Amino acid sequence: MQNPSPLDAEIIAVGSEMLTSQRLDTNSLFITDQLNSLGVEVRRKLVVGDDRAILTAAVKHALMHADLVIVTGGLGPTEDDLTRESVAHALGRELQFRQELSDAIEERFRRRGRKMAENNKKQAFLVDGAEVLPNPNGTAVGQWIEHEGKVVMMLPGPPGELKPMFANECLPRLTARLPAQFIRTRFYRVTGMTESDLDHLIAPVYSKYTNPTTTILASPFDIQIHLRARCATEEQAERLLAEVAGPMEELLGDRIFSRNGDSLEAVVGALLRERGATLAVAESCTGGMIAERITSVAGSSDYFAGGFVVYSNAMKEKALGIHPELIARHTAVSEEVARAMAQCAQLRAGATYAISTTGEAGPESATGVPVGTVYVGFAGPNDTAAGRKFNLPGDRARIRLFATQGALDYLRRQLLGI
Amino acid sequence: MQNPSPLDAEIIAVGSEMLTSQRLDTNSLFITDQLNSLGVEVRRKLVVGDDRAILTAAVKHALMHADLVIVTGGLGPTEDDLTRESVAHALGRELQFRQELSDAIEERFRRRGRKMAENNKKQAFLVDGAEVLPNPNGTAVGQWIEHEGKVVMMLPGPPGELKPMFANECLPRLTARLPAQFIRTRFYRVTGMTESDLDHLIAPVYSKYTNPTTTILASPFDIQIHLRARCATEEQAERLLAEVAGPMEELLGDRIFSRNGDSLEAVVGALLRERGATLAVAESCTGGMIAERITSVAGSSDYFAGGFVVYSNAMKEKALGIHPELIARHTAVSEEVARAMAQCAQLRAGATYAISTTGEAGPESATGVPVGTVYVGFAGPNDTAAGRKFNLPGDRARIRLFATQGALDYLRRQLLGI
Repeated sequence: MQNPSPLDAEIIAVGSEMLTSQRLDTNSLFITDQLNSLGVEVRRKLVVGDDRAILTAAVKHALMHADLVIVTGGLGPTEDDLTRESVAHALGRELQFRQELSDAIEERFRRRGRKMAENNKKQAFLVDGAEVLPNPNGTAVGQWIEHEGKVVMMLPGPPGELKPMFANECLPRLTARLPAQFIRTRFYRVTGMTESDLDHLIAPVYSKYTNPTTTILASPFDIQIHLRARCATEEQAERLLAEVAGPMEELLGDRIFSRNGDSLEAVVGALLRERGATLAVAESCTGGMIAERITSVAGSSDYFAGGFVVYSNAMKEKALGIHPELIARHTAVSEEVARAMAQCAQLRAGATYAISTTGEAGPESATGVPVGTVYVGFAGPNDTAAGRKFNLPGDRARIRLFATQGALDYLRRQLLGI
Repeated sequence: MQNPSPLDAEIIAVGSEMLTSQRLDTNSLFITDQLNSLGVEVRRKLVVGDDRAILTAAVKHALMHADLVIVTGGLGPTEDDLTRESVAHALGRELQFRQELSDAIEERFRRRGRKMAENNKKQAFLVDGAEVLPNPNGTAVGQWIEHEGKVVMMLPGPPGELKPMFANECLPRLTARLPAQFIRTRFYRVTGMTESDLDHLIAPVYSKYTNPTTTILASPFDIQIHLRARCATEEQAERLLAEVAGPMEELLGDRIFSRNGDSLEAVVGALLRERGATLAVAESCTGGMIAERITSVAGSSDYFAGGFVVYSNAMKEKALGIHPELIARHTAVSEEVARAMAQCAQLRAGATYAISTTGEAGPESATGVPVGTVYVGFAGPNDTAAGRKFNLPGDRARIRLFATQGALDYLRRQLLGI
């Protein structure tokens, strides 16, 4: 069943900022994930500064060992941007000015009511024999160069430009170079448990298999599980995948909130849309994070009625109409106030549902309850209301993240009647 | 005045897990910070898997270009741990079993009530001529090898072992190798311009100097500039720094919002606090992002009155009290409505100041104005109100980020009377 890697890759990230103590090359994670999905292994990852000699030597060296050399960054318009000329030099090729690329960049500036700077012309130079990888999100086009049976790719550094370019331009070209193989994948997103609890639960299932591969990616309260089977036939791949995915799904149950990669805010949005319902939010400790996540989804105006960021008791009273007496009796960080916040937000916004947060994000506690204590409130049709307490670990930023995720998942469960 | 880096370093991180899509080498950030504090620059960072041939070649290659080669990881007791033998091989030296190291590891296990496994003996092998770097936090000792005027260091991968070893063992040895020197730094954060416009403006100043070094780090609308001068005397370093920093500050002017690393939301918060003032926000297209950033600062409850996320026209009317007629006359995406949103939020929250956003974040335009059109509104004491139009590039996520940054900077400028 084992299936060795058909091609080896080296990733070279260019940019002096990634040689400082503050910045890492994170593009390589995305690229690695994409390459692995084709069965291509990354053998070396290199970070170099904006230095022509070092970069040229690095590309030459990489070509001696790897089938694919992926150079990211250094395609901007400034003097520091040396990737084009260094790659050309390493390959012993010339750079050619391409009027059509220059015109396209100029047009891009014009559409925004700006004039192209002279130095942007630098971005119109192409290595001899290179294919252009179009960049709808920026002025730096990518380049794809076939060289003595190998491939060198140049991709822009900004992730918002690199990712769509890699997915739309590089992946299809790479797939065409690979031997026929069938790859089947499954993808789960899970919330409501820690990574180590999840691993403890499902490792007995996946650790028996090297094909499919199981990759677990964790961020606070949001864990992604990728399964990938690679086989000579489609049925083989499907069968292998089902052997692992079946028991895994059974163990995880309703903690799986997405099977297609959708974020929790998109899943919740889809549930609201299905029900023809609207949502209001009232946030204290999360300070606008829930609204921000809900509205990050395109089209969310269809179901998002609006939000209230009620940081102070005065705002809870003024903007939401919470009785001061309720706060006085239970303190602002209580399930009673969380429920009332949700009900008032629902009423004020005229929404079908509402959720709320109130808690202590730290660094100090203002109410005396321990830092990390967060209450989530819920209000639904027919005067239904509910609440839940969380005790969250970590610093202020982490508590706010956890609380936001906890509130969105609580809403998901309420909408699904879990 | 020029003072090139006294020593160059290359960091090689060893471990196949760092070639997956989930793990980055973060030890290099710590090591870089420590090296920079001595004026040592990192020229290359490499990640390689647990592969003898690749690692041996990498160490050989690094020795051709760098004065210091720092190899992290791969010092454990398993078959995959190949750093010792690969480095020995690259240097053409032998590995020697050292009974005293083996005894120390055995003693460490004994103290924990455990027996040393046979494979831990692997960790008692030293490259010929290496100095031991003791590891009070684990079984893997580090090694310091002087080789033809250069230094190769081997350090254990776990950060809890690597960091104290580097600080306590490597730093003193490195300091002894370096000429006496003084380092002075400046740090600016700039907003309101693109990276390429900024570079165009200040490159004529900084590009004449390699000392101080200038590093520019950009994210949307938020650019960091680091200057670092390194000289034999303190006055020299200060003078050199002033030669570059003076003209640079003059060119950038009030676009510099921070000289100490503070974020824009922290700077705005400090301005409000100084004035004993409070702030309300009314957000349409930014959907809670401004409130989220303001409240990410600890202690922001002192000056943040609250926020309204008014995504729909109905919420603009219900939650803020905007006249429907105003929206009908100017559309929701207009300077008039932005100003009214700020004024209503100020009034409803009883705040000294308010800012607002209304715009088209895309992907489609709901009002007919082009995607990327954003109006920011401001309300201050004595019925002052103002507004500004932005035409922002990029996709939905980027437009929201830009708009948030633009609104916070607009508020900063209003507070400072710029």
